[in-house]
Amino acid sequence: MITLQDCQHRDAMDPLRSLRDLFHIPSGIIYLDGNSLGAMPKAAITRANAVVLQEWGNGLVRSWNSAGWFDLPQRLGNQIAPLIGAGADQVVVTDSTSINLYKVLSAALAIAAQDAPQRRVVLSERSNFPTDLYIAEGLCQEHGYTLQLVESQDILQALNTKVAVLLLTHVNYRTGAMHDMPGLTAAAHQAGALTVWDLAHSAGAVPIDLCASRADYAIGCGYKYLNGGPGAPAFVWVDPQHAERFRQPLSGWWGHAAPFAFTPDYQPAAGIQRYLCGTQPIVSLSLLEIGLDAFAAAEPLGGMAALRTKSLALTDLFIELVEHRCAGFGLGLATPRAHSQRGSQVCLTRELTPGDSGAFAIMQALIARGVIGDYRAGDKRTLHDILRFGFTPLYLGYEEVWNAVEHLRLVLSTEEWKKPEFAPRNAVT
Amino acid sequence: MITLQDCQHRDAMDPLRSLRDLFHIPSGIIYLDGNSLGAMPKAAITRANAVVLQEWGNGLVRSWNSAGWFDLPQRLGNQIAPLIGAGADQVVVTDSTSINLYKVLSAALAIAAQDAPQRRVVLSERSNFPTDLYIAEGLCQEHGYTLQLVESQDILQALNTKVAVLLLTHVNYRTGAMHDMPGLTAAAHQAGALTVWDLAHSAGAVPIDLCASRADYAIGCGYKYLNGGPGAPAFVWVDPQHAERFRQPLSGWWGHAAPFAFTPDYQPAAGIQRYLCGTQPIVSLSLLEIGLDAFAAAEPLGGMAALRTKSLALTDLFIELVEHRCAGFGLGLATPRAHSQRGSQVCLTRELTPGDSGAFAIMQALIARGVIGDYRAGDKRTLHDILRFGFTPLYLGYEEVWNAVEHLRLVLSTEEWKKPEFAPRNAVT
Repeated sequence: MITLQDCQHRDAMDPLRSLRDLFHIPSGIIYLDGNSLGAMPKAAITRANAVVLQEWGNGLVRSWNSAGWFDLPQRLGNQIAPLIGAGADQVVVTDSTSINLYKVLSAALAIAAQDAPQRRVVLSERSNFPTDLYIAEGLCQEHGYTLQLVESQDILQALNTKVAVLLLTHVNYRTGAMHDMPGLTAAAHQAGALTVWDLAHSAGAVPIDLCASRADYAIGCGYKYLNGGPGAPAFVWVDPQHAERFRQPLSGWWGHAAPFAFTPDYQPAAGIQRYLCGTQPIVSLSLLEIGLDAFAAAEPLGGMAALRTKSLALTDLFIELVEHRCAGFGLGLATPRAHSQRGSQVCLTRELTPGDSGAFAIMQALIARGVIGDYRAGDKRTLHDILRFGFTPLYLGYEEVWNAVEHLRLVLSTEEWKKPEFAPRNAVT
Repeated sequence: MITLQDCQHRDAMDPLRSLRDLFHIPSGIIYLDGNSLGAMPKAAITRANAVVLQEWGNGLVRSWNSAGWFDLPQRLGNQIAPLIGAGADQVVVTDSTSINLYKVLSAALAIAAQDAPQRRVVLSERSNFPTDLYIAEGLCQEHGYTLQLVESQDILQALNTKVAVLLLTHVNYRTGAMHDMPGLTAAAHQAGALTVWDLAHSAGAVPIDLCASRADYAIGCGYKYLNGGPGAPAFVWVDPQHAERFRQPLSGWWGHAAPFAFTPDYQPAAGIQRYLCGTQPIVSLSLLEIGLDAFAAAEPLGGMAALRTKSLALTDLFIELVEHRCAGFGLGLATPRAHSQRGSQVCLTRELTPGDSGAFAIMQALIARGVIGDYRAGDKRTLHDILRFGFTPLYLGYEEVWNAVEHLRLVLSTEEWKKPEFAPRNAVT
């Protein structure tokens, strides 16, 4: 069996170990929630001070030019591009993931309406990230489409002549299961549908090649594995062959062909620039650059391939340790064992019967011990709650995985989670 | 005539003078562009550090609860409400002004389509802020409406039985002219139209009473007179009688009735909360709170009424000094002299004939001297360029107005602006 010493040895041998020093990990914390909000790079403090005091305070409105604010969406897009297999000047950072989904799904539906008006279905996964389904539901209602939700294993079969757009999140937020992006994109195209990929739970965590996958549209999040800070703006990519066919409906000044001409009529900018809309939150936007710098630092150490290798080693280790050291406590595994189907998180299940699975309390007890993951409630369909653990290879080590599992074992074996202070309440989790 | 000593005396007597100490005004700078980007409150540095290091760095994902991130849109909305005559829990801060306009104009058109389907016109002002017109143009095309643009003086006459929505910016960005919000709203209602007011150039600068004006929808900007920092998120207000009649189309998780239930179907939240969409940029959002704190500090000194009195005194002084001390240099006045029609900015004109008015170079020369305003290019219709000067009564003094005009006089009288380094180029201004 794996020992603590084995884990320490793996840390000592880890070629990416130095990257951890770029991040601020609070003392006593094992942070397994980078899939919800990435940890803070230490340089974010310096950058925040520079943007606020130097750029805003001293530069004032001049900083639109002198500090390069106006170029930020494109500059950050170009930093993200190599992480997702996009070309230069094909990505911009702007707005939120939900709003960017509205833009790209609107554009995809406009193409579908022109090229294949008989196709009236947007196909997605029932357990897709809810906000994606909300945006899709709204657009479908507005444009007379049906939002068809199927289970993951039924997607291929559902790709029929009625489907206009296949909308999927690459890595599932509840299970950590990863879709086969090239395979599903090819199947969608074969069936005559366009694809929209949400990379919120995969960009920066797993290698992605949008161009090689021949994807049509992609969006993603700046504050999870990209470590851009709470609510950092999101990104959007569009296959260049589609980018200029339609304008997206959020036609604000920053997406105008001549944003400072102040003409009363809208002329969309060329390429991906037309996916910009209004003025962006410059301070939050600037901090994302620091998060992306960590990936530049990882490049000489092997880049995304090395990060992926470590991510799989961390999640393999966590699964193995949980299954051995926490056996008999009613935990199951929601995340696929196959590497090709796993993102960078591990989700454990607890059965809902006889009602309360205890998962909420277990997570509260873990957090009280400094092991931060999160909890996702189950429903009648899944019959289990989820304990969710994200593994960011930029800053996590193997000994931390050992210690996290040891805390989990103690929470379960001593029934610590049954203490009243960990009982479910109406908390935001 | 007014003298420098008079201006110094007015500063000494200014009951709001202490508020200037809340702001960081760089040495040697007279900042007359707070209508584009407000100056930095000194406390923004401390707040940025706290949000980045304490809330993000140490609190990590727990800060959604422990640092109150989840309540920020509503909490900031309640800080803005008294500045615009809105009730408690009627305003949220979120997204950009352009995106919020998309939401409210969509909702207004949905009401109009149901209540008065024969009305197919959105009426606005030709010189409305361009990004507002771009958003309106897109929605009109999508929903089969005509965007009718008229001159300011023709609005009342154009309010006929075809008009569904009157969309106006309260204070014009190019001229500083302020509309009569209660009067135009009453006229629009009389004609059977709904009103959407953009308060970007008036919130925090002039007293506004949305409820007393019986306005229907309003949006506004966080980074101009509210001093929230570059690209700070925007705000949105909806008359409570309309708020729940329709959902706005950007249906993201934060506007859901139960945002943490993760249900696959969208149920809009009650009231103004449904105007939220995706995750907000928390660092930028948090800094807006500091900007709004300055208005709380102004409250015991007379609040918005006192700020308005000072704003009018500052703009009166600027107009008077320019007209006396810069006479004969081809400057005109684009801003109304009548207090009831003036926002908190003064716009000077330079004739375009014989092509280049020199306004760009004049502004560059002023900026080189530390007097920061901005330049807006003219067109065939206006036949003049604009030199734009914003006056934020929270931090500007009378002596600064004197000195700004003195710099302008020197730039003009010595023809300093004709130096090659100030010549027009393809700069972002």
